[in-house]
Amino acid sequence: MRVPKKERQRLLQETIDRNPFIKDEELSKQFAVSIQTIRLDRMELKIPEVRERIKHVASEHLDEVKSLAMSEVIGDMIDLKLDESAISVLDIEREHVFSRNEIARGHVLFAQANSLAVALINDELALTTKADIRFSRQVHLGERVVAKARVIKLRRDGRTDVTVDSYVGEECVFSGDFTIYRRGEEEQA
Amino acid sequence: MRVPKKERQRLLQETIDRNPFIKDEELSKQFAVSIQTIRLDRMELKIPEVRERIKHVASEHLDEVKSLAMSEVIGDMIDLKLDESAISVLDIEREHVFSRNEIARGHVLFAQANSLAVALINDELALTTKADIRFSRQVHLGERVVAKARVIKLRRDGRTDVTVDSYVGEECVFSGDFTIYRRGEEEQA
Repeated sequence: MRVPKKERQRLLQETIDRNPFIKDEELSKQFAVSIQTIRLDRMELKIPEVRERIKHVASEHLDEVKSLAMSEVIGDMIDLKLDESAISVLDIEREHVFSRNEIARGHVLFAQANSLAVALINDELALTTKADIRFSRQVHLGERVVAKARVIKLRRDGRTDVTVDSYVGEECVFSGDFTIYRRGEEEQA
Repeated sequence: MRVPKKERQRLLQETIDRNPFIKDEELSKQFAVSIQTIRLDRMELKIPEVRERIKHVASEHLDEVKSLAMSEVIGDMIDLKLDESAISVLDIEREHVFSRNEIARGHVLFAQANSLAVALINDELALTTKADIRFSRQVHLGERVVAKARVIKLRRDGRTDVTVDSYVGEECVFSGDFTIYRRGEEEQA
């Protein structure tokens, strides 16, 4: 349903504050207006486009990854506080989906979440030992997945519990509870 | 420890019967003899080399994959009985490992197991909804991972429980309990 322009712009500002990674396409669907209208709203509100918003967030909060090479993170990492929290963004492209139905393959969402959970660890060796994961809705070609990881527990034995929730827009599409091993434990893990 | 040739050849035959995918390198380590010795033993015992053994197994037991394109299975599928069991083999190459320590990345082992669990399903739409996974030992560049999947339960609601255990030689390196959704349930899964 349509809302008056003033109200729409207020809600738009709120939505983008809450989810800076939302694309104009998604906003257009959410507010049932054209993409052009969203662009005009953003111009009037002086909100930059999503790529700029992402860069801005990224330059503010990015610690240096220790446990792997930055290029080994699946997706674009835009937020990292070592041993605390991290966020990455992955645009689902043709290489990520099943050819016949254009649904993202499970291991792609897993790889984004898993590499984020590993990148979060403040140590030069970090490996996943365990994960419980749920795929809660199908993700399609062209959608943008925002994964948010946070440390739940730094255990005394050096293992770290990390939870990752991944969203398309405001909908949760994947969640995982990971246990990550870091150096300082015995070699086999 | 070395064992007499006759005894070694008996054990070699037994080992290969149990695990037809084992490489000469692994046999050489296991019996503490050179690879050349293993090759001579195989010749005397008329056991073909591992690639031939795999092809042989493959041509005997391969049903046609339904749920995805064969090229979308990660690893070489060498055994498939739809809705029953499947086996795939993945050689860990440079693209699969962390650059700095040559340890296989978690999502690679996950992708092998997950795509095998999906390929097992006798339906044109099959998607993972849930997985509990354990990485029990590090896998290194050059190692061969044999994943074995079997159906544990075909549930009335159409969901299927599949367990996958992955081995390097006789050592378990990964296990996962997967729940796979197949068509016939509601769309969101």
